[in-house]
Amino acid sequence: MACVGSRVVVDIDVKKKPWEQKLKLHNRWHPHIPSVAEVSVGELVRVEMMDFSGGGITHTYSAEDIKNANLSIVHYLSGPIRVLDEGGIPAMPGDLLAVEICNLGPLLGDEWGYTATFDRENGGGFLTDHFPCATKAIWYFEGIYAYSPHIPGVRFPGLTHPGIIGTAPSMELLNIWNERERQVEENGLQTLKLCEVLHSRPLANLPTPRGCLLGMVKEGTPEWEKIAREAARTIPGRENGGNCDIKNLSRGSKIYLPVFVEGANLSTGDMHFSQGDGEVSFCGAIEMSGFLELKCEIIRDGMKKYLTPMGPTPLHVNPIFEIGPVEPRFSEWLVFEGISVDESGRQHYLDASVAYKRAVLNAIDYLAKFGYSKEQAYLLLSCCPCEGRISGIVDSPNAVATLAIPTAIFDQDIRPKSSKVPVGPNAGEETRRSEMHL
Amino acid sequence: MACVGSRVVVDIDVKKKPWEQKLKLHNRWHPHIPSVAEVSVGELVRVEMMDFSGGGITHTYSAEDIKNANLSIVHYLSGPIRVLDEGGIPAMPGDLLAVEICNLGPLLGDEWGYTATFDRENGGGFLTDHFPCATKAIWYFEGIYAYSPHIPGVRFPGLTHPGIIGTAPSMELLNIWNERERQVEENGLQTLKLCEVLHSRPLANLPTPRGCLLGMVKEGTPEWEKIAREAARTIPGRENGGNCDIKNLSRGSKIYLPVFVEGANLSTGDMHFSQGDGEVSFCGAIEMSGFLELKCEIIRDGMKKYLTPMGPTPLHVNPIFEIGPVEPRFSEWLVFEGISVDESGRQHYLDASVAYKRAVLNAIDYLAKFGYSKEQAYLLLSCCPCEGRISGIVDSPNAVATLAIPTAIFDQDIRPKSSKVPVGPNAGEETRRSEMHL
Amino acid sequence: MACVGSRVVVDIDVKKKPWEQKLKLHNRWHPHIPSVAEVSVGELVRVEMMDFSGGGITHTYSAEDIKNANLSIVHYLSGPIRVLDEGGIPAMPGDLLAVEICNLGPLLGDEWGYTATFDRENGGGFLTDHFPCATKAIWYFEGIYAYSPHIPGVRFPGLTHPGIIGTAPSMELLNIWNERERQVEENGLQTLKLCEVLHSRPLANLPTPRGCLLGMVKEGTPEWEKIAREAARTIPGRENGGNCDIKNLSRGSKIYLPVFVEGANLSTGDMHFSQGDGEVSFCGAIEMSGFLELKCEIIRDGMKKYLTPMGPTPLHVNPIFEIGPVEPRFSEWLVFEGISVDESGRQHYLDASVAYKRAVLNAIDYLAKFGYSKEQAYLLLSCCPCEGRISGIVDSPNAVATLAIPTAIFDQDIRPKSSKVPVGPNAGEETRRSEMHL
Amino acid sequence: MACVGSRVVVDIDVKKKPWEQKLKLHNRWHPHIPSVAEVSVGELVRVEMMDFSGGGITHTYSAEDIKNANLSIVHYLSGPIRVLDEGGIPAMPGDLLAVEICNLGPLLGDEWGYTATFDRENGGGFLTDHFPCATKAIWYFEGIYAYSPHIPGVRFPGLTHPGIIGTAPSMELLNIWNERERQVEENGLQTLKLCEVLHSRPLANLPTPRGCLLGMVKEGTPEWEKIAREAARTIPGRENGGNCDIKNLSRGSKIYLPVFVEGANLSTGDMHFSQGDGEVSFCGAIEMSGFLELKCEIIRDGMKKYLTPMGPTPLHVNPIFEIGPVEPRFSEWLVFEGISVDESGRQHYLDASVAYKRAVLNAIDYLAKFGYSKEQAYLLLSCCPCEGRISGIVDSPNAVATLAIPTAIFDQDIRPKSSKVPVGPNAGEETRRSEMHL
Repeated sequence: MACVGSRVVVDIDVKKKPWEQKLKLHNRWHPHIPSVAEVSVGELVRVEMMDFSGGGITHTYSAEDIKNANLSIVHYLSGPIRVLDEGGIPAMPGDLLAVEICNLGPLLGDEWGYTATFDRENGGGFLTDHFPCATKAIWYFEGIYAYSPHIPGVRFPGLTHPGIIGTAPSMELLNIWNERERQVEENGLQTLKLCEVLHSRPLANLPTPRGCLLGMVKEGTPEWEKIAREAARTIPGRENGGNCDIKNLSRGSKIYLPVFVEGANLSTGDMHFSQGDGEVSFCGAIEMSGFLELKCEIIRDGMKKYLTPMGPTPLHVNPIFEIGPVEPRFSEWLVFEGISVDESGRQHYLDASVAYKRAVLNAIDYLAKFGYSKEQAYLLLSCCPCEGRISGIVDSPNAVATLAIPTAIFDQDIRPKSSKVPVGPNAGEETRRSEMHL
Repeated sequence: MACVGSRVVVDIDVKKKPWEQKLKLHNRWHPHIPSVAEVSVGELVRVEMMDFSGGGITHTYSAEDIKNANLSIVHYLSGPIRVLDEGGIPAMPGDLLAVEICNLGPLLGDEWGYTATFDRENGGGFLTDHFPCATKAIWYFEGIYAYSPHIPGVRFPGLTHPGIIGTAPSMELLNIWNERERQVEENGLQTLKLCEVLHSRPLANLPTPRGCLLGMVKEGTPEWEKIAREAARTIPGRENGGNCDIKNLSRGSKIYLPVFVEGANLSTGDMHFSQGDGEVSFCGAIEMSGFLELKCEIIRDGMKKYLTPMGPTPLHVNPIFEIGPVEPRFSEWLVFEGISVDESGRQHYLDASVAYKRAVLNAIDYLAKFGYSKEQAYLLLSCCPCEGRISGIVDSPNAVATLAIPTAIFDQDIRPKSSKVPVGPNAGEETRRSEMHL
Repeated sequence: MACVGSRVVVDIDVKKKPWEQKLKLHNRWHPHIPSVAEVSVGELVRVEMMDFSGGGITHTYSAEDIKNANLSIVHYLSGPIRVLDEGGIPAMPGDLLAVEICNLGPLLGDEWGYTATFDRENGGGFLTDHFPCATKAIWYFEGIYAYSPHIPGVRFPGLTHPGIIGTAPSMELLNIWNERERQVEENGLQTLKLCEVLHSRPLANLPTPRGCLLGMVKEGTPEWEKIAREAARTIPGRENGGNCDIKNLSRGSKIYLPVFVEGANLSTGDMHFSQGDGEVSFCGAIEMSGFLELKCEIIRDGMKKYLTPMGPTPLHVNPIFEIGPVEPRFSEWLVFEGISVDESGRQHYLDASVAYKRAVLNAIDYLAKFGYSKEQAYLLLSCCPCEGRISGIVDSPNAVATLAIPTAIFDQDIRPKSSKVPVGPNAGEETRRSEMHL
Repeated sequence: MACVGSRVVVDIDVKKKPWEQKLKLHNRWHPHIPSVAEVSVGELVRVEMMDFSGGGITHTYSAEDIKNANLSIVHYLSGPIRVLDEGGIPAMPGDLLAVEICNLGPLLGDEWGYTATFDRENGGGFLTDHFPCATKAIWYFEGIYAYSPHIPGVRFPGLTHPGIIGTAPSMELLNIWNERERQVEENGLQTLKLCEVLHSRPLANLPTPRGCLLGMVKEGTPEWEKIAREAARTIPGRENGGNCDIKNLSRGSKIYLPVFVEGANLSTGDMHFSQGDGEVSFCGAIEMSGFLELKCEIIRDGMKKYLTPMGPTPLHVNPIFEIGPVEPRFSEWLVFEGISVDESGRQHYLDASVAYKRAVLNAIDYLAKFGYSKEQAYLLLSCCPCEGRISGIVDSPNAVATLAIPTAIFDQDIRPKSSKVPVGPNAGEETRRSEMHL
């Protein structure tokens, strides 16, 4: 007879700090962070996780905690989890690890979340030059729905997903990451097109022992020091998956992750009740603690079979994802467009980031006409189930990006309307009960 | 009693050249191109259009015509159409013109299309350095479905839409366009981040009398000369809509276009049977001739009410779109991810264009494992209903973009699979008729 | 090189009578009605058809034509079409004929339709005892949308489909039909549970030469007389498909029809712009003329492979259908329930027809609270894309049936509402721009 | 600051019997069963419930427990719950109680369910004469998915819903129920059309003290005796909602229930992980224990405003339901049709129950061609997310009903197929890498 329910492999007590959890969390990527649990393929397991800040950002309505957030500690992850096949043989480098998301959600008794913008001097966000100050909205969950006293008139079902899911990098891959990101930070602004706009955001977040939590590695040991100096930050998504922030990775999805170390060493965290494409405000999803019920499969030699390196080494790959039929479906969308001309009127060449920025700004300004402050709109577009599309990327010199918002999340009709009496079939209720000719 | 059916305001004879049509076409944006038809709000009208090349690209299976395509002539548009309200008063600058797409499709008897890549030296495409040669695939339509003898094993319903729909610019707006695009072309590559990759593509396409067709403006007159020298090319999408290539602008959509000249002077063309987000191969949709049934509404002062300038003048705006419930819905998607690290392994900073490029390359390489050539996969991803998303735009230094392909368009199962006998519930057909315990 | 577009195998001139068409129509099922066209498998062909009444019901707003409709002439069908395989061998009895609906729609220039109720004494409808009089609503089409001056405030995209598609019966099957329907008519009311309610509707419609049109069979000949006396009426759906009125058989669907005679002899007609499940008012869809683009495939011996007789002979089978992804998708539905207790309060035993009747009556009464007359609501529920479900069929003594209406088809919000000021998150616009705590 | 999470108003210990629960359950409808909890409008509350059998049907793979099931005890309900407005004033007769289903699912640690058929002599089912024996399939849940070792090759996401949700009847309404159901039982078979087929199923289930559980009413008291003799069984759905088995009442739905007694006295139970329309095998959903998170609203005088009596008294009404956007969406369906001719070949008159029966039998026989036993197929169609439609109810003498099965739930392709090499665009993989003409 089969087992009933899932086996809990990582459980979380949200009243405790990240370093006080029974299985200590980690906030860096490194091959030498030891696994904390083992799972077999086909087994349904439950992984619980703290919110990305490990409880640092709280339920208070003040944004003080965001303003002073210590970004060196993000993101607290659960794991690593070592994956074995039916015969007890671990996943091996070169395999693909298929992770099915069978279920996920907030932790019972902790059904709330927050969306925030960091201060420009402390992390910023996509529109930090327009919105330089720390802000925060608290969201409450009513089952699958979220609402916020700070952004009234909106309520939507969450397309809940883990912001971060990834495998441990090998030392070789870790070195590639550190090297290429160091170059960006060092070469800095002169090579960057967006310099005027984004200058106050960090270009990269290089390894630092500051704020480092390394799971079962004992702090103060030489090993801890070495790992802390080498281990990659969790902020960017990379070859191992990681912080990919793909908002549709919800119930019924499947993630094919490359395996770089024996056992795969899967980690996950940064649970989002909901997120808009782009997660524009940076702390932009509805961040929460949560659980994930997942099932693993190993595809032996899957990297060679299914992935193609996109760079100088066989490690330059990306995961693949499958999105299933189980998500909220909206019928009607209001779509905002941006082209790669920036707010100063300057033309950029096929730059989708500039185009998307303009699309988001257009949407914010539009929503401001319906009673929202721009700050509210910015937070809302970060976390509601809106879609960010690259619509055109070839029509020189303009990239076209679009942001589509499901109209059903608002309690008012936000579509443009003529103030005149409508003409045509719907010409007015007075004629509704029109005479039937008999 | 209401009218039955639509009034044809522009009709096309696909056997004739663009300049031989009863109502001559135009391939430039300029306020002084006279309108060829008038429509009233609420009226259902039918606009027919040639394919973007005006018949220059033909039904032959050879790609010679693509190789030698004259890009100075694109895109042939139908219109301009002058729009009046119920009282006969035209749309005025500052209004919004709402255009509902009631129906659209190929012209009867001309149910075919093509997807192509231009030569690197003649326009190129998003991946021109990977695919420098001209290629072409012919598509045949079976009602709402398209299939191609050149890309076997794929068949999909078209999300048919006009690639171009826009209003005429005012002189002031036209001057802004010409000035900013001239700057890009002049400042050229040194300011461009993507220079290594894209150097063979034109940076902008400035006005040129070469290939110019100006509708009712008589060729050879001083007026023609002046307009031809000033008129903007139709390649990029801009403030007036234009070549926005938004693939979901299909049946039941509504487009809110800013009005810059009296009468609005709506033009449309570049009909696509289907297109993927990004239209990556540039000549990348399934290009065809077609018809559009549309209905206009004027929202007086709508620009002020609903749009916010995103630049130094009130003209720096973008249209808004509404997407309706009438489109093919796919349940399952296979998703490819790209991060802003290029093929050389170099890190770019939050660059969605680089990330999307890598996502597309990943998808092409993946499909090549299923029996397609990379050229076939590139064309397919240009024109099938795939979605290009900006998934993460804040996690320095990596932007994350994704490309999602509906799995149902293939006649084989393209998902990654373990070669082992499956474990678990579906463990094999031999056990299907398992004993029921009674 | 493949063919472009479809080959027209039956074309219709809507200005002519059914018997004046180039290829004469037929309104009976009989194996000896000769085929009027031949098609090969894989070929895309176009079949045009008159509306079911052959133009008898007109565009006038008066319902006089409905009141006096001659029901002995329904439904005028196009065909029969003989189907051959690639080698020219016809479909044979025992095969399955797979018909893919590639496209369909109204005829150009005839974009209107009607929904009606017959007089109680002349055909009636599902609710004829509640609505005994002839009524009619004219619908106009704006591309994929329909609206009616007689039912204002409603507009919806059509899920267009042929009401009738079927193969010719063999003589053996025809005899079975005639015999079993004669028994119902003769045994009459005493065996019928619904007698009180439905007494004025005909129990069956047996063969009659009156109104008979038999295609290429020459009128006045002995053969005509014989066929006319034997041929089955087209009103009920039967083993050959026929008038199955399945509203989702729209673009992209596939129909697997059993073959009873050599060549299959496919006929189709009774085009519906839109219909609600049940087609409750009987003349209840939006009836129109139209075209069908279809493609055939023959599955040899498919009846044995895929169908199982559901009665005393191998002919007691039913077709199978495939519904594809291309249809309007509505997000929100208002659902009305009925149980098998009739309007007099009498309990029926697990009777889904009684339950559905009550669900429809509930919905009509509900819509009447929003400004519609009950006659308008009855017509609307006949033709809009509402879903009729058998929700529970086992909970003695009550069957539960439901009728679900997509709320988006109305220009007002038809959901029940509390008149009180709402409480909770959406508590009012005055608080929308609530203070962000910083 | 708002509350986090839901307040538990009924909690269940699945290891205890129904009568041992802290808040005792009830299995009858009666106005005098006292409420066990109070909730306010707007409050998010959690109600837990046992499976309908109160644990009587177990996790064993044998069907013995089904064979000997005591049907006098079904269904164990949680409640009644008294509903108050913000001012503490209870819901009153004549109001509508709007219940939003915010979330629901299995109980943690009890993630399994069962689908069964009762013995013909002990309750039977829709097809009891075809399937007279007790059978049972156990289902395991992997998050939102269910699979069964007894029906291999199938896995699907659950559209989880409460089979029963209803308000307490008034004495007047209860008397109406008892009277009309008594008449059916007494008049018996002679008035029933389906007599030959269904004779072994009970016609109604009249009140009986046998198996009666009445919540807080003390057993053995005269009050208990009186209520037990009067209280209605919970098997049929009725005016108060009750066992309506509407499979789409899942997350995000809203139910508008008439209020017949002060406080509304809401009860719920019979949780279904998944169910097919009709719940054909009677014990036919995936039955489980579970929880419901709900929120109430009172619409004062809502019965008068929104409901219309469908019978001799103002109490003859039915609830209204709203279905939201959050459910699994399937793209492709295989549809089986039935007409109102029974298995003996006898014609019935517009009888949707007979037509649906034939559609279900057709589907069972079809699935049997793919390796399933008919018993497996019968259980599967009872519990998978298939749709039962009344497609045509007016085309005398045949009602047409359809059963649509989402093809994606199977791990094999169940569509009919020609065994020949396909012709046309997808003609074979050998041509996939066809030459691109350059």
